Amino acid sequence: MKKNNQDKLLVFALGGVGEIGKNMYVIQYNNDIVVVDAGLKFPEEDMLGIDIVIPDINYLVDNLDKVRGIVITHGHEDHIGGLPYVLKQLNVPVYGTKLTLGLIEGKLKEAGILGDTKRILINADSEIQLGTIRTTFFRTNHSIPDSVGVCLETPEGNVVHTGDFKFDHTPVNDQFADLQRIAEIGKRGVLVLLSDSTNAERPGYTPSESNVGVQLEDIFRKSAQRVVVATFASNVHRIQQIINASIATNRKIAVVGRSMVNVVNIASELGYLHIPEGMIIEPEEVNKMAADRVVILCTGSQGEPMSALTRMARSTHRKVDILPGDTVIIAATPIPGNERYVGRTVDELFRLGAHVIYGPGSASGVHVSGHGSQEELKLMLNLVKPKYFIPVHGEYRMLRQHATLAEEIGIEQENIFVIDNGDTVEFQNGVARKGNKIQAGNVLIDGLGVGDVGNIVLRDRKLLSQDGILVVVVTLSKQDGTILSGPDIISRGFVYVRESEGLLDEANKIVSTTLQKLMNDKVNEWASLKTNVKDALGRFLYEQTRRRPMILPIIMEV
Amino acid sequence: MKKNNQDKLLVFALGGVGEIGKNMYVIQYNNDIVVVDAGLKFPEEDMLGIDIVIPDINYLVDNLDKVRGIVITHGHEDHIGGLPYVLKQLNVPVYGTKLTLGLIEGKLKEAGILGDTKRILINADSEIQLGTIRTTFFRTNHSIPDSVGVCLETPEGNVVHTGDFKFDHTPVNDQFADLQRIAEIGKRGVLVLLSDSTNAERPGYTPSESNVGVQLEDIFRKSAQRVVVATFASNVHRIQQIINASIATNRKIAVVGRSMVNVVNIASELGYLHIPEGMIIEPEEVNKMAADRVVILCTGSQGEPMSALTRMARSTHRKVDILPGDTVIIAATPIPGNERYVGRTVDELFRLGAHVIYGPGSASGVHVSGHGSQEELKLMLNLVKPKYFIPVHGEYRMLRQHATLAEEIGIEQENIFVIDNGDTVEFQNGVARKGNKIQAGNVLIDGLGVGDVGNIVLRDRKLLSQDGILVVVVTLSKQDGTILSGPDIISRGFVYVRESEGLLDEANKIVSTTLQKLMNDKVNEWASLKTNVKDALGRFLYEQTRRRPMILPIIMEV
Repeated sequence: MKKNNQDKLLVFALGGVGEIGKNMYVIQYNNDIVVVDAGLKFPEEDMLGIDIVIPDINYLVDNLDKVRGIVITHGHEDHIGGLPYVLKQLNVPVYGTKLTLGLIEGKLKEAGILGDTKRILINADSEIQLGTIRTTFFRTNHSIPDSVGVCLETPEGNVVHTGDFKFDHTPVNDQFADLQRIAEIGKRGVLVLLSDSTNAERPGYTPSESNVGVQLEDIFRKSAQRVVVATFASNVHRIQQIINASIATNRKIAVVGRSMVNVVNIASELGYLHIPEGMIIEPEEVNKMAADRVVILCTGSQGEPMSALTRMARSTHRKVDILPGDTVIIAATPIPGNERYVGRTVDELFRLGAHVIYGPGSASGVHVSGHGSQEELKLMLNLVKPKYFIPVHGEYRMLRQHATLAEEIGIEQENIFVIDNGDTVEFQNGVARKGNKIQAGNVLIDGLGVGDVGNIVLRDRKLLSQDGILVVVVTLSKQDGTILSGPDIISRGFVYVRESEGLLDEANKIVSTTLQKLMNDKVNEWASLKTNVKDALGRFLYEQTRRRPMILPIIMEV
Repeated sequence: MKKNNQDKLLVFALGGVGEIGKNMYVIQYNNDIVVVDAGLKFPEEDMLGIDIVIPDINYLVDNLDKVRGIVITHGHEDHIGGLPYVLKQLNVPVYGTKLTLGLIEGKLKEAGILGDTKRILINADSEIQLGTIRTTFFRTNHSIPDSVGVCLETPEGNVVHTGDFKFDHTPVNDQFADLQRIAEIGKRGVLVLLSDSTNAERPGYTPSESNVGVQLEDIFRKSAQRVVVATFASNVHRIQQIINASIATNRKIAVVGRSMVNVVNIASELGYLHIPEGMIIEPEEVNKMAADRVVILCTGSQGEPMSALTRMARSTHRKVDILPGDTVIIAATPIPGNERYVGRTVDELFRLGAHVIYGPGSASGVHVSGHGSQEELKLMLNLVKPKYFIPVHGEYRMLRQHATLAEEIGIEQENIFVIDNGDTVEFQNGVARKGNKIQAGNVLIDGLGVGDVGNIVLRDRKLLSQDGILVVVVTLSKQDGTILSGPDIISRGFVYVRESEGLLDEANKIVSTTLQKLMNDKVNEWASLKTNVKDALGRFLYEQTRRRPMILPIIMEV
């Protein structure tokens, strides 16, 4: 392809830097934009009442005519969860492998846009042309099958995006990463590598998923009663190993939890899960079988309040009880922020008399990460041998650690770009530099509202959550300068009213006195009355309680 | 001492089981009650707006005439933080070692009850008589100096409470645990051991605090610029090692952060910290000195929003800036729940160009735990050789793991009591059994309020935090059956009003229509009007937004 001096390649993140998730990287060559992934993230703890967070895609909407498609590397929520929202603003084709598209289709159906969305099935051998950008793929290992990395060939040079990956030399179902193809891509020359930084802080190698299978079979065999295993629903390889261990130990499997049932169905239909006839039993049948012939596969490995395992632990599950002597395996590591939820679930399970196998300390190998550790990240860097490097997917400290690894394998420090969402890296005539900043950020989703909850609303929720609210209602006669009715004080989330009558009576008096004085002084502008009531009452309550509830004066005048 | 068949020893927890902290165990022999520790805990994430949590001590208040004193094992918040509240209800003598009392006195002074509280200084060799209970002590190792375990000798048998402990064979300042005395106590015969379970999930031995010193000196020496070290203010041994490493590497120390300054002062005055003349410089002097001659010792190892390190990381500290190339050491492990705060601080420090040494992965030994791991817990069990065992201090799963360790060293399963707060273990005529449950629980402190925030208030705060509140104000004429003014809708924390005018206009109409219809139907009981407005508006808003704000109808009638 011809190329002139004005031609330019841009690489930037709309999501993927910062708290886990919400991955979205963008490659633009002149008038062709390819988006890699469209994930969501779960709200940070100060985003009160928010359900999920997606990337701000205003840049893409403004350049809609240039967007050639969204390429999805794998079917995890933090890579596909934003699609239902993004596609409503940006109806462009979505490219994904079979399982990935299967999972996406479920989401689009729920959102009512399945019919409107062009979905294009790819496999690791596909070659697609996205405008001037020829796009190929390579198989990777990750904690979900059918994950790929992407090679985007532009006239300015080749861009490689790894997606999430590890190198598993003994993968489940022989799903090897394609080392040869990655090496070949590297040999042909790579301008810039974007590589997964999730485990950049972790030395060594991430163990193989197969290790988990050995361990599970051993535990299944030694357990005299039922075995309950909680893991991520999307970890189809893990589920396959749980099935294999069940076969080997002559146990049947009950599948419990909506998303687990859902993924088991999709993955078996699409051929990613091999379940012999008669292996699966209904949860209702569990109690009819000998305890040592049963495995219960369920959701809840993160201690999520409404999940199957949490309900079992609290003895509120409709179909399954945990009995003393049962073995419960939590085959997952808590995502940061979930440690206490998981801890509480483990506590409850112990109280019920279960043997619980959990956590990094005593987990004895029932979980391995889906992300490569430092040695694997260096292997990827050495296979791809890029000129420039952009660490992706991770908090800033992980990106920095990944940058350090890249320096260690010999990439020049000035050829490494640690970027924030919205930072662009510009490649022109073989040279890279930081480009202009583009709009990027969080769009908060609360119920049906997309972006309608902003800082003011969040600040109010924060205030309300700390000390509650007092509504003060009073009716004044402007002419007479007297209080006709009230003040009535209604409080929510401040104090337990029945036990604080004295305090609220005093508060009432403060309001009356304040208003009466103002009216006597002929101050009767509405705003001034309100401000004075707020101040006087706020001061009094702070003195009495050291709390600062929100105060909402409602002053009616007749 | 004579003893008859009715005599009885009770052991129970008022705090110490469940989320970290709030430790308080009670030993009662007939009419003599001894309390061990009076800690606080920090609120769980669903205790919105709560500052701290202390144990419910109603049992002690009801038996005030029997309480002989509160024995404090060491000066950590989770062992002394409840004292200002407890002593207001229970004015009994407090026993503690020198540093422990020093820290307690600061608290009591702040609470204005220092003069009213009888404080009795003990050391590891003290023997005190608390009614019929002869009490002796033994030195332990922990992450604060001057920590002790307690031996309570009752006619029914001896009770040993370890406090928090580890076994450090190379302790800082030669503060060895008194292995000989513990062994001697064991040899004389122990009825029941209460032992710290914090690290019962962790295999092996906890490394010595001295290891940290070696590491710190190495880092100090290799750093070409300033070194910032954040650690727990109360970890006086750690601070001593930071001082020693500074001396060895010819650096001066600036102390930053209120609690760090406070502890450094108290600990030096009392002789627990040896600081050569001229070592300490003012924070203001830092910028005048060569960068490789300075150490900044500060608070903020947990990423606490208002702490010194967090301010430095955000470039909002008044006196100290982090410069590119500075080394920052976070010499602590995040307490569960604080991981994200610490992560964000590390991110910010990296953004400023600092080298950051943090976290278990890459910490390279800049922190060790103050609690013994499994081998140390077994060593304690074997030294004390108790007949009965009660694991203390920890979440339920940790207590269970500790119980398993006790079984492993040969204690009969039926002689091990894993108890919840309020469960009693009764010892009578040499036999132990579970006794009656007594009142125990959490008392929530919010500002000056002690226990005035209960479930209803917390539920309201939760609701308010999720979707905010709508106050609907309307004035009706009962006689005419018409709406005189309003409805006016005031919202807080629901939607950003300026961008949702259409929604709120609609909501207004719903309220009007609902009220008008009711009045036309001659339904005009106040309660019924309110309920109907709430229901209709709630339904409408949920349909439109999938949110459920709190709705507060204020209906005035004239």
